[in-house]
Amino acid sequence: MVISHYVGARVRRKEDPRLITGSSQYVDDLKLPGMLHVAFVRSSYPHARIRGIDASAAKAMPGVVDVFTGRDLAARLKGKPELIPGEAPHPEEQKPEGIPVPPEEPIAVERALYVGQPIAVVVATSAAVARDAAEAVVVDYEPLPAIIDPEVAMQDGAPQLYPNIPNNIGERWERVHGDIEAAFAQAHVVVRQRFRQQRLAGIPMETRAIVAAPDPLTQGVTVWSSTQAPHWNRNALAAALGLAHGQVRIIAPEVGGGFGVKIGAYQEDFILAALALHLHRPVKWVETRSEHLMATNHGRDQVVDYELAADAEGRILGLRARIVQNLGAYPRGLYLPSTTGLMACGCYDIPAVDIKAYGVYTNTMAVGAYRGAGRPEAAYYIERMMDLLARKLGKDPAEVRRLNYIPPEKFPYTTAAGEKYDTGDYAKALDKALEISRYHEWRQKQQELRQQGRFVGVGLASYVEICGFGPYESAVVRVEPSGAVTVYTGTSPHGQGLETALAQLVADRLGADFDQIVVLHGDTQSVPEGHGTMGSRSLVVGGGAVLMAIDRIKEKATQIAAHLLEAAAEDIEFVDGKWRVKGAPDRAVTLAEIAQAAYGGNLPEGMEPGLVATDFFAPPDEVFPFGTHVAVVEVFPETGEVEILEYYSVDDCGPRINPLLVEGQVHGGLAQGIAQALWEEVRYDENGQLLTGTLMDYAMPKAAMLLSFTTDHTETPTPLNPLGAKGIGEAATIGSTPTIANAVMDALAPFGIEHLDIPLTPQKIWQAIQRAKQA
Amino acid sequence: MVISHYVGARVRRKEDPRLITGSSQYVDDLKLPGMLHVAFVRSSYPHARIRGIDASAAKAMPGVVDVFTGRDLAARLKGKPELIPGEAPHPEEQKPEGIPVPPEEPIAVERALYVGQPIAVVVATSAAVARDAAEAVVVDYEPLPAIIDPEVAMQDGAPQLYPNIPNNIGERWERVHGDIEAAFAQAHVVVRQRFRQQRLAGIPMETRAIVAAPDPLTQGVTVWSSTQAPHWNRNALAAALGLAHGQVRIIAPEVGGGFGVKIGAYQEDFILAALALHLHRPVKWVETRSEHLMATNHGRDQVVDYELAADAEGRILGLRARIVQNLGAYPRGLYLPSTTGLMACGCYDIPAVDIKAYGVYTNTMAVGAYRGAGRPEAAYYIERMMDLLARKLGKDPAEVRRLNYIPPEKFPYTTAAGEKYDTGDYAKALDKALEISRYHEWRQKQQELRQQGRFVGVGLASYVEICGFGPYESAVVRVEPSGAVTVYTGTSPHGQGLETALAQLVADRLGADFDQIVVLHGDTQSVPEGHGTMGSRSLVVGGGAVLMAIDRIKEKATQIAAHLLEAAAEDIEFVDGKWRVKGAPDRAVTLAEIAQAAYGGNLPEGMEPGLVATDFFAPPDEVFPFGTHVAVVEVFPETGEVEILEYYSVDDCGPRINPLLVEGQVHGGLAQGIAQALWEEVRYDENGQLLTGTLMDYAMPKAAMLLSFTTDHTETPTPLNPLGAKGIGEAATIGSTPTIANAVMDALAPFGIEHLDIPLTPQKIWQAIQRAKQA
Repeated sequence: MVISHYVGARVRRKEDPRLITGSSQYVDDLKLPGMLHVAFVRSSYPHARIRGIDASAAKAMPGVVDVFTGRDLAARLKGKPELIPGEAPHPEEQKPEGIPVPPEEPIAVERALYVGQPIAVVVATSAAVARDAAEAVVVDYEPLPAIIDPEVAMQDGAPQLYPNIPNNIGERWERVHGDIEAAFAQAHVVVRQRFRQQRLAGIPMETRAIVAAPDPLTQGVTVWSSTQAPHWNRNALAAALGLAHGQVRIIAPEVGGGFGVKIGAYQEDFILAALALHLHRPVKWVETRSEHLMATNHGRDQVVDYELAADAEGRILGLRARIVQNLGAYPRGLYLPSTTGLMACGCYDIPAVDIKAYGVYTNTMAVGAYRGAGRPEAAYYIERMMDLLARKLGKDPAEVRRLNYIPPEKFPYTTAAGEKYDTGDYAKALDKALEISRYHEWRQKQQELRQQGRFVGVGLASYVEICGFGPYESAVVRVEPSGAVTVYTGTSPHGQGLETALAQLVADRLGADFDQIVVLHGDTQSVPEGHGTMGSRSLVVGGGAVLMAIDRIKEKATQIAAHLLEAAAEDIEFVDGKWRVKGAPDRAVTLAEIAQAAYGGNLPEGMEPGLVATDFFAPPDEVFPFGTHVAVVEVFPETGEVEILEYYSVDDCGPRINPLLVEGQVHGGLAQGIAQALWEEVRYDENGQLLTGTLMDYAMPKAAMLLSFTTDHTETPTPLNPLGAKGIGEAATIGSTPTIANAVMDALAPFGIEHLDIPLTPQKIWQAIQRAKQA
Repeated sequence: MVISHYVGARVRRKEDPRLITGSSQYVDDLKLPGMLHVAFVRSSYPHARIRGIDASAAKAMPGVVDVFTGRDLAARLKGKPELIPGEAPHPEEQKPEGIPVPPEEPIAVERALYVGQPIAVVVATSAAVARDAAEAVVVDYEPLPAIIDPEVAMQDGAPQLYPNIPNNIGERWERVHGDIEAAFAQAHVVVRQRFRQQRLAGIPMETRAIVAAPDPLTQGVTVWSSTQAPHWNRNALAAALGLAHGQVRIIAPEVGGGFGVKIGAYQEDFILAALALHLHRPVKWVETRSEHLMATNHGRDQVVDYELAADAEGRILGLRARIVQNLGAYPRGLYLPSTTGLMACGCYDIPAVDIKAYGVYTNTMAVGAYRGAGRPEAAYYIERMMDLLARKLGKDPAEVRRLNYIPPEKFPYTTAAGEKYDTGDYAKALDKALEISRYHEWRQKQQELRQQGRFVGVGLASYVEICGFGPYESAVVRVEPSGAVTVYTGTSPHGQGLETALAQLVADRLGADFDQIVVLHGDTQSVPEGHGTMGSRSLVVGGGAVLMAIDRIKEKATQIAAHLLEAAAEDIEFVDGKWRVKGAPDRAVTLAEIAQAAYGGNLPEGMEPGLVATDFFAPPDEVFPFGTHVAVVEVFPETGEVEILEYYSVDDCGPRINPLLVEGQVHGGLAQGIAQALWEEVRYDENGQLLTGTLMDYAMPKAAMLLSFTTDHTETPTPLNPLGAKGIGEAATIGSTPTIANAVMDALAPFGIEHLDIPLTPQKIWQAIQRAKQA
């Protein structure tokens, strides 16, 4: 029997002492000798030809070292073509089949394609001087017609962003399954709705930040970057700069949140690395909050049309969906249309679908990964549709859901949309959510309150999502000579608490002293190829790699224990954190004793020294966490304001290594998902100018705007990884947006309002109520 | 057939571009924000009680942050006892059998034991302020009787450095083998000589240097140190500071030479790490050259008595030796007496020995590893003895050596001294040395020149040495997704060119692009437990670990190649840098293609991703390089000066991976060994004050004082490691000192001078000639 002392316990985070005391190190904390500072001249136009750039005034300013345009950078870099603007091979040559993928220039040379795109870069002795000088650079623009709305962009005759991408359609995905025509022909009821899902910004506490410095020992470059996936940046930069992988080292020190928007190398990463190599000096750039809102990947931004066919009981017969994803100006979210499409069925056993999804280029900032990336979008649509269906049939939304759930016995289950779900027990989570929220009591109370002229709404949503993405993750586990353990993971946590979770696994499975376990991450030099932290994959896939490495170490440790205890390896058991001889509990050795032997030479004949393992875990498939959330809200018709009265979440991520960490993820996810439902939106005006360039305009929630959540869980393990775990990083974000939207729509039902698009701002609600009253 | 394109070729050093352009990074190049500077108050007395320390004036100086005495440091550190002065457990409790090993205090508390010992440490905002303040610290000393001469220290009644170490004898080693009494009884001739081998200083180009900074992410400490063995320091510091191994990171960036004196954690390493943790700021210390001469481990310093018994032919019958090693004040060279004793027989088949060796504490700087550490000492004695024997018998020294060589057929051969030599062909190296030096011509010419009043001497020496020390070495080889290769080695080269040699192995054996191979070292975070660069072990043991890792990668690569080429793994061969199907040379894949498959998921069923291996090589035993050197010198009696006219070395280190690197090691070794023969000496006066505290006093050679060497080699592989290689780092140092000494003595033969102790300075030679003339 292996005792699990740490796994499953509410172990406090190893990360917190350094964070609470403010003694950790973010990129902006780095100060290197001779370091220069960088600021960007960014496009003021969503679409414009660059006729000329006059940097003479900027260059003359005291403290300015140099100003580089795209052409300058190209001329001074010996990098590979894709980094050199204007020299990129024609994309069709690269991808003969399918839709071409336009190359991303680090600095715009001929044309600017969105507001905020880098046009020139200023290097100066301080960040303030660099910023002032950037404002002194004069760019001669010739404005071109800009397209902001993806549905307009798709129309024939619309201006094209790229000459070889007709109708600006950068991605197409389609799935027709089952007899969709029959489904709609036989339907007792058809529900149709158009949804516009707003654009969001990531807004991690720490904006993007980069320090790049020449590496004197490899003659390459070290880049400290606030990134979620250091190896991806390493690979991209090495290729672009023509360096060996060993010459490019990416370090993500403490990272203050990512939410998906810190995935992948940005223009700024390439530019800073190139400048460090060119100038032979360290260079630093820390994104301002306005730059973040303007030039860091956005999320969501879809417009979709859904149709649901159902029988008189409410059993779904078929789903039609047309999904239009605004890609922005660059291809950073090409997988979003298909992901949304693949998850379109949600938790439901839908026999027939006809889903068409498009990704469309527009003159806006690129849309990429943002917490959930495709799954929140899909969950929002189907969960709103379920409520619309229930309302149309006059049924309880919980019961319509229950009727349509994929039953537990059908797993693994492939949806009509084409996604294969591993395991699930949706009714169990629903039941628990209904119970802890006293759902039925609330339904009754709601009626009473309505009598009193109070507009209380009860909303719920069931979600399922994909996580545990491969292709694989790496881990190095080193038992050191003292028995201390150092773990290196290829994932790159940035606030999640993974150091604690992995240390719990090591402590229990190797009998290591928890305080002597150090988990390191975010450094391409310490661990082979990893795929970072994103898509709720870190524990599921990264933890899997750690477990595999632990198992290898344990195998060797058992051999050494047998040698030390003068017993056969088969007679050694690991009990209570020690290796002991079966039936002779006093004959036992600790990890420290085994480590001492491993490094000190007291080893079985022919065994190599050391107690170290490097391993990769490639999950056989994705895993699908799920849950049901319930919210009770009140809407105040006089102001259109929404108050959340109660919030209940039941999430199932399989076994929980550390409930404290899981709850932290759930709390954060709820805040973020609720914010999408009620407040947050990136807006461009019709000319493509960003309206939400500061936090005065982009409505992030404050703590006081939220309530105390009641969280609970069910536990349905997956057979697809050694922990049985499923990931919890995105789950609550996904469940909460439709829950709140449904609750608000439920509150507004007395006004006859069926649907409003999120965010459900007071203005929008008040106007809808006014319209309803007038109607 | 594996083509060896790089191995064996004169490949230019990967290291040189960064070194030649001055763009590399030594510890002193590091500047960290908020970094403070450290200077040491060091003992002015070789032995004194510390009655009090008044730092008030120093603390009051502008820019001084604080001054710490040993007691302060102890009070403020929560470290383990061995680091806390005055709290060390009684050494006898630790080592119940054998002689106690005295603990080393980081800062002297009660007593100072040698001139230069740290007494207090000043922290200030600049190095200059710190040094000035260190001079303002007033120490109240009570001088105690000091012992400088180890033979005096051994006498009964001599003052003791440590109360529990009688006669100051810190180490004893003895070997009696064969019938030594009979050997001397039967001897036709007995040669006796007392040798005093001077004390040396390491004098690498870069002195010791340390920067220690708190690590914000582990809450431990990162120490950049000019060290030869980062992991050793990591282990020592972690234990002393009570930190997990993962919390202590040692980085040896570019290191400017070591020669053995940069092995091991010094007091300064502990102190700086502790200060960084205590002050929460980076601290820096760069040893001055005077500090280096005073307080960095010294080398050599022995006084020995040798007796050689031989028959009339010159065949050696027995050897008696009494070796007294001056250990200095601390136990850093406890292995030196035994190493000298074990190598006492040199290349010779000596049937009987009686060797007694002692290590003796004195009030001088500790003696530790210095290029060769025990082997140069032993080689010098036996090679001088061979010349004395030849002279006594009137025979050619070359022929007396040949007569006594261990013949090739006797290997592996265990000497009477107890050392097991792996392989050797000493006569082959001798023959080549005699041939290329035109030895016999020179012998004739010498006679003619003597007729002309010129004192030309011809000297030779044959040496054998030990290298390839275990216990093991580690390596990580990572084929990156592009096919670039990153190698991490547990050895820690500091000028040897190992990056180049290891890259050559990787290029040939994996078909990797040489320019895409990056070899990294000197970082405890990147590679598991290593044992550093010392004892000519890096290629032999470190290269062995790299080869083992390569072999593992190759095995996996072959499986992947078979999968890609749709062939059986048995049908895949590695030819011309590619994996191809036997009999179908067009069906081939490169390393880059295999890497792409390994990381891209195109793998055989069930194979884990990645192309990475970590391995350890534990050599089964040491290896024994050898060689013969010949020198022709001229002595000018009017001044006592020596001019080296010609120098020939024939060294056998087995197969040479890169002859350019081997020659570099030989050239440097010759310079250093010749310098010991002629110039260098660390001297203390009879009161224990250092006389050679600057490079004006310590006579390092200048390039113009040396000549152009003629180097050659023979090649006798060892079966004990996969390369067959033996190590060349120390060889030439070992061979050259006795060669020059023998040549000078040969030149002085007409004066009847039989022996003078090294260094053979003009003064010493001139005085000897004067004495000889007066006699």
